[in-house]
Amino acid sequence: MALSLPKGFLYAGAASGIKTDGKKDLAIIYSEVPSIASGMFTTNAIKAAPVIVSMNQIKKGQKRIIIANSGIANAATGQSGIKDVNDIINAYAKGFNVKPDEILTASTGIIGRRLPVDKIIAQIPVLKNDLSRQGFMDAVRAIMTTDTVPKYGSRRLKISGKEVILTGFVKGSGMIQPHMATMLAFFTSDVKITPGALKKALSNATEMSFNRITIDGEMSTNDTVLILANGLAQNDIVTEEDKNYQLFEQALMDLTKELIEKMVKDGEGASKVIEINIMGTKTEEDGRKIAFKLANSPLIKTAFFGEDPNWGRIVATIGASCTYANESTLKIWIGKQIVFNCGKGIDNDALLKVRNSMKNKTIQLAVDLGSGDKGFNVMTCDLTYDYIRINSTYTS
Amino acid sequence: MALSLPKGFLYAGAASGIKTDGKKDLAIIYSEVPSIASGMFTTNAIKAAPVIVSMNQIKKGQKRIIIANSGIANAATGQSGIKDVNDIINAYAKGFNVKPDEILTASTGIIGRRLPVDKIIAQIPVLKNDLSRQGFMDAVRAIMTTDTVPKYGSRRLKISGKEVILTGFVKGSGMIQPHMATMLAFFTSDVKITPGALKKALSNATEMSFNRITIDGEMSTNDTVLILANGLAQNDIVTEEDKNYQLFEQALMDLTKELIEKMVKDGEGASKVIEINIMGTKTEEDGRKIAFKLANSPLIKTAFFGEDPNWGRIVATIGASCTYANESTLKIWIGKQIVFNCGKGIDNDALLKVRNSMKNKTIQLAVDLGSGDKGFNVMTCDLTYDYIRINSTYTS
Repeated sequence: MALSLPKGFLYAGAASGIKTDGKKDLAIIYSEVPSIASGMFTTNAIKAAPVIVSMNQIKKGQKRIIIANSGIANAATGQSGIKDVNDIINAYAKGFNVKPDEILTASTGIIGRRLPVDKIIAQIPVLKNDLSRQGFMDAVRAIMTTDTVPKYGSRRLKISGKEVILTGFVKGSGMIQPHMATMLAFFTSDVKITPGALKKALSNATEMSFNRITIDGEMSTNDTVLILANGLAQNDIVTEEDKNYQLFEQALMDLTKELIEKMVKDGEGASKVIEINIMGTKTEEDGRKIAFKLANSPLIKTAFFGEDPNWGRIVATIGASCTYANESTLKIWIGKQIVFNCGKGIDNDALLKVRNSMKNKTIQLAVDLGSGDKGFNVMTCDLTYDYIRINSTYTS
Repeated sequence: MALSLPKGFLYAGAASGIKTDGKKDLAIIYSEVPSIASGMFTTNAIKAAPVIVSMNQIKKGQKRIIIANSGIANAATGQSGIKDVNDIINAYAKGFNVKPDEILTASTGIIGRRLPVDKIIAQIPVLKNDLSRQGFMDAVRAIMTTDTVPKYGSRRLKISGKEVILTGFVKGSGMIQPHMATMLAFFTSDVKITPGALKKALSNATEMSFNRITIDGEMSTNDTVLILANGLAQNDIVTEEDKNYQLFEQALMDLTKELIEKMVKDGEGASKVIEINIMGTKTEEDGRKIAFKLANSPLIKTAFFGEDPNWGRIVATIGASCTYANESTLKIWIGKQIVFNCGKGIDNDALLKVRNSMKNKTIQLAVDLGSGDKGFNVMTCDLTYDYIRINSTYTS
């Protein structure tokens, strides 16, 4: 799908020197007119300074600018970290002639380090000069850390006869777990929408996408999902009760699903995507617990890496995460092949077929507990040598 | 410490052919006189057949024999698996001239495969012939799976002027998590003790040792801890109220702590032992949650493997596992060096010193949340390339 950009948004990315290799590390999103904004933030009890500041800023009406940096998370930096964010906001407000309240920020990278505020402020003239439609890809690249590919997408839809465009980009390849661990996602749209409807759509889309993926079960201090909507599409305003609301929510959900698939595929060291679907639980919460326990199990993740249909580990993990799991009603499928059927595993010939199907890049794992009519689905990746390589030598 | 064996116990180990490489896979522990017995079993909702059978057997009075095999777990095998265990018990009862109720069994290995009952029964004459004091090491080796070293130990103590001996051996190098995931531990003692006192001592020792270690957060279907006490030391009987009870419990606790250290050191692919001590929580349960979240965090485990004092990941994980975590009261030490002190990380020079201390084989990680006077401690190992190698190619 070709990328479309919403009316009235400009983007840029610069290399401020946070990343020592000269790569881009500072992104800006700029709306030519005031936008309504909504945000979702990490539920980690210890929140990074930009998260604390943006959670407060988001309450203060319309926005013009998002500033995001990679390389340093500005987390666990205490009051000094908060002051750094505010200094940056004030300088950018002046430089771009907007109000400080109109700016949101986000950071990703190493925890515990202070931001080089002077270097970030020194980039204001560069970013101002580079602000453009073409700058989109620079912005996308500027928020990447261990990501190996830029991850972005867009949707076009018609609302009341007007073309509406929605565009998003994300970073995040390790530490991704429900509630959006180390992930930044920025959406821009020219849709005309009420703040309530925008908030509801973002919240629903997050619940169905970002909160259903995990790379390694970790939760970050910095996760941030932001959306700006500037209304320049001039559609009839979308409200929560409106039938057009469904159109917009669907487009946003669809786009976030595309982006989470890209994130999981690009999980740190990942060689395979595993789509886990739990059925037959008594509650959705039970399904969620089992799905995430399977998705974060090092034994299961390494078995998928090894293309080994080790359903025994799956049985054990289900039993460890659900008190009413019972092998006599339990069914497990890998791909289309049932591997465990109510107390009985398949024979070696059938297992060989499953093993072959595990050579695929995307593998489905389905589980039916046979105990109810609820369930949950989660997407994850395998655990590989490369995950160890990337993460044993990260900070220095 | 030299190994001591309690009076009246004989041991043997044989190669029944479950392991295809001809290694020993079948262990027997035999008491010349009836022993009282106590056991602790996995809390996994899906329990292996030998666990289901032994949980029932343990209620039926005194015991003479423990049979344990490695290579096949006999888990997720339904009613057929239960029948296999009972067939083995009946054959061994006849072969060794004891009652079926006097036999306990345990298994470890691959889930979902049936035991080769005929081969196991065919070993009865071999085991009978080999039963001896010297057979202890054969028994120890026969329960090993991915363990790289045999793990055993003993304690001698005086109770009412009589020498009492307590001996134990364990297997378990992956899938070790609270509530004893894939771990087998067998203790034998000649102590004279009441069933109530034996049960209490085993339960307390398990809580302070086996339930405080984790390799990878997995919980097995087969975990079993068994103790037999045959009374041949002829000490005054130990009761729960007795002052001698403390002596015995202390010896058992001391021995289990020695054995868990050996297990963690021999964790799958482990290159380092990490001793985690959480302080300053409001409840012990909060401490337990934080300790296990840190101990099972792939990002933290890989950082320790890389000898990288990445305290930022530790801060993030604490925040993810405790709602009242607060960086302004949080302190973190790696070894003796404080690395994060109430909102502030240490500088790079100090960090270099910490990095050097992380070359040690055993590393202490201490955390004070500054929010209460409770805490918890857990022992774990790092996450290495070898863990991936071992577990990506396990079943076939």
